[in-house]
Amino acid sequence: MMSDTVEGLLWQSIAGGVCAPAGFTAAGVRCGIKSRGRDLAIVRSDRPAAVAGAFTTNQVKAAPVLFNQQRVAAGRAQAVVANSGNANACTGEQGRKNASHMAEIAGEALGLDASMMLVLSTGLIGVQLPMDKIEEGIRSAAAALSEKGGANAARAIMTTDTKPKEVAVELEVEGKKVRLAGMAKGAGMICPHMATMLCVLTTDAYIPQDMLELSLRWAVDQSFNCISVDGDTSTNDTVLLLANGASGVRLQNRDSIQRFQQALDYVTSRLAQAIVEDGEGATKFIEIKVTGGKEYADAHRVAMTMANSLLVKTAVHGADPNWGRFLAAAGRAGVEVQPERMDLYFGDIQVVAGGVGLQFDEAAASQVLTGPRVNVRMDLHLGPHSATVYTCDLTTKYVRFNSAYTT
Amino acid sequence: MMSDTVEGLLWQSIAGGVCAPAGFTAAGVRCGIKSRGRDLAIVRSDRPAAVAGAFTTNQVKAAPVLFNQQRVAAGRAQAVVANSGNANACTGEQGRKNASHMAEIAGEALGLDASMMLVLSTGLIGVQLPMDKIEEGIRSAAAALSEKGGANAARAIMTTDTKPKEVAVELEVEGKKVRLAGMAKGAGMICPHMATMLCVLTTDAYIPQDMLELSLRWAVDQSFNCISVDGDTSTNDTVLLLANGASGVRLQNRDSIQRFQQALDYVTSRLAQAIVEDGEGATKFIEIKVTGGKEYADAHRVAMTMANSLLVKTAVHGADPNWGRFLAAAGRAGVEVQPERMDLYFGDIQVVAGGVGLQFDEAAASQVLTGPRVNVRMDLHLGPHSATVYTCDLTTKYVRFNSAYTT
Repeated sequence: MMSDTVEGLLWQSIAGGVCAPAGFTAAGVRCGIKSRGRDLAIVRSDRPAAVAGAFTTNQVKAAPVLFNQQRVAAGRAQAVVANSGNANACTGEQGRKNASHMAEIAGEALGLDASMMLVLSTGLIGVQLPMDKIEEGIRSAAAALSEKGGANAARAIMTTDTKPKEVAVELEVEGKKVRLAGMAKGAGMICPHMATMLCVLTTDAYIPQDMLELSLRWAVDQSFNCISVDGDTSTNDTVLLLANGASGVRLQNRDSIQRFQQALDYVTSRLAQAIVEDGEGATKFIEIKVTGGKEYADAHRVAMTMANSLLVKTAVHGADPNWGRFLAAAGRAGVEVQPERMDLYFGDIQVVAGGVGLQFDEAAASQVLTGPRVNVRMDLHLGPHSATVYTCDLTTKYVRFNSAYTT
Repeated sequence: MMSDTVEGLLWQSIAGGVCAPAGFTAAGVRCGIKSRGRDLAIVRSDRPAAVAGAFTTNQVKAAPVLFNQQRVAAGRAQAVVANSGNANACTGEQGRKNASHMAEIAGEALGLDASMMLVLSTGLIGVQLPMDKIEEGIRSAAAALSEKGGANAARAIMTTDTKPKEVAVELEVEGKKVRLAGMAKGAGMICPHMATMLCVLTTDAYIPQDMLELSLRWAVDQSFNCISVDGDTSTNDTVLLLANGASGVRLQNRDSIQRFQQALDYVTSRLAQAIVEDGEGATKFIEIKVTGGKEYADAHRVAMTMANSLLVKTAVHGADPNWGRFLAAAGRAGVEVQPERMDLYFGDIQVVAGGVGLQFDEAAASQVLTGPRVNVRMDLHLGPHSATVYTCDLTTKYVRFNSAYTT
């Protein structure tokens, strides 16, 4: 996460969610797919936008993922229509038709070519979309589009999330203002190996599509691919970034691209961390940093193995400084480690040196693990690379919650 | 698991645990490492035995694992001394000295050369062994050794297990009786990639050491490497097989080796399944079979990914026929699958055909998932290979339990 000082120099947080950038409107309405609350969202640009996307690496891909992958390859889009409550995953040929039909209905309702639509779905797997409700929802959302609709749109993509997740920033590029914003949803089936969950990012900067793609890939690697709630990679994970150029600012020199990238990293990191903070049943936000990796990938994998270990997650839940679980997880991460070099810290308290436990103040260590924000650091002492990942504790609430999802 | 019919033809279950085979004695005593119960065991052969071992693949290996790996390479051993309550893991140089010292004390107490001793430890990571207690325990266990000591030994290696795990069988080889037995302990930090947890197997057959090794490797692959409680691979996992030849029966032709192998597969499978049945907080035993794999390794990995998915484990816990979670887990297993070919069954009820959900009787499917034994089968339709793995449900009790282990 960027420190406030650095942040202050480069950009400013602003209100408005995905509608903060010029030329974007949004709406979120209820059409009755979920048992309650808004469940259909549209985000629209007033002009065609360059688009980049990152999608789940799960081989079982939901219909809208397959649909968007083709669309994004064309490089341009103008609106995103999203529903919650139904993932349109494992729905076969009918599901693919429905995703496509959803785009057609939206195109018609918005007076745009259907080929400029992207579709997102999230929720229960294996049930066909209720197309009558979807159609009704699209029409009422299209009618409700406004520059103030960002917050409703962010609500309408929620499933098990307890709160909406939006971030918007303004930065200066070549002396002019550019805005960048995003909304995302979690909160289960969250694990990396790709863009995780649903996220729509908007910017009024003008960025060539190939650069947009690189920029998004980098940002996703440093944010959504560094979080895990439960180690389960969803069938629907999608991150979309639309750049409509409405600010009149073209990102063309190295400095301005770098500025934009830093702001994008900030926005995606904030959204990714918001997903973890709102993890199903979570009571603690856990930052796990691994330093001293031979490669970034090694450090990342060790950190992620700890983040996904049930024993690590329950130990933190119980504020139990049971450091052996962290070392055991690192040892099975599948990358070379040297146990006798490992150091481990809970906050500022070193608990392991050279793979061996130190005498330490257990009460103070337990205090560090009490949260609500917990920092753990492991030094592998094998090289210069480090990685930081974010996860949450595993609670009885998570288990109760996920034992009764469809029923 | 072998069916009763097949079982009846080849071997017979008998009492006596690890002491059932001729020439073995055992004892399990309390020396005060755990807060209560027996915590030190010895299993002894009356003569040197051929020995084979399988050890954790975790790179963070406990001192006794490192110790045994060297010893087992020599091919012969005569006694195993084991303690519970302390894993002697992440204990550095002092831990290695303690493991070695434990063997010396046992050798002295048993009047045997220290080089014929193997040592096992299980319990909390990162604390030095209380050597005074260990010494006292070894002396009193050595004094208590008897042919009836198998049950006490099985109790003395328990940590979070709620019941001891022992199996013994008698089979006929070349017209003569041979016996084979084992004891094991779980119940957390259980995942494959190696021999899992602690297990001591004894037989009075005579088997050359190289053949013993092959035989054990095969048996472990089909049993302990097919179970998972929580996906965490321990630092201490060890399986030892001692063959002392006291029955006077040499396994030398193909038929007798095959018979022995089948019995060994049965014993290790029973013990492995007993570990899952006794998984921390578990209320259900889940068998997941994947058929139609291109390779065994593919089928095994898909099955194991489902077995380790929190969402799968909680769905089964809630008897929730939320089949999308099974497909999503299969899709992220890291081996090639074709979603549009996947079939899924809960018991005899097919819920997915060609990757798409079928209309099925939800109440009946929920009934299948109610347990206490749950069968799930996925057909990948990509080849002739299948794999079966065993796991348990994830419960609030698991979380509560593991949130308060050291404290």
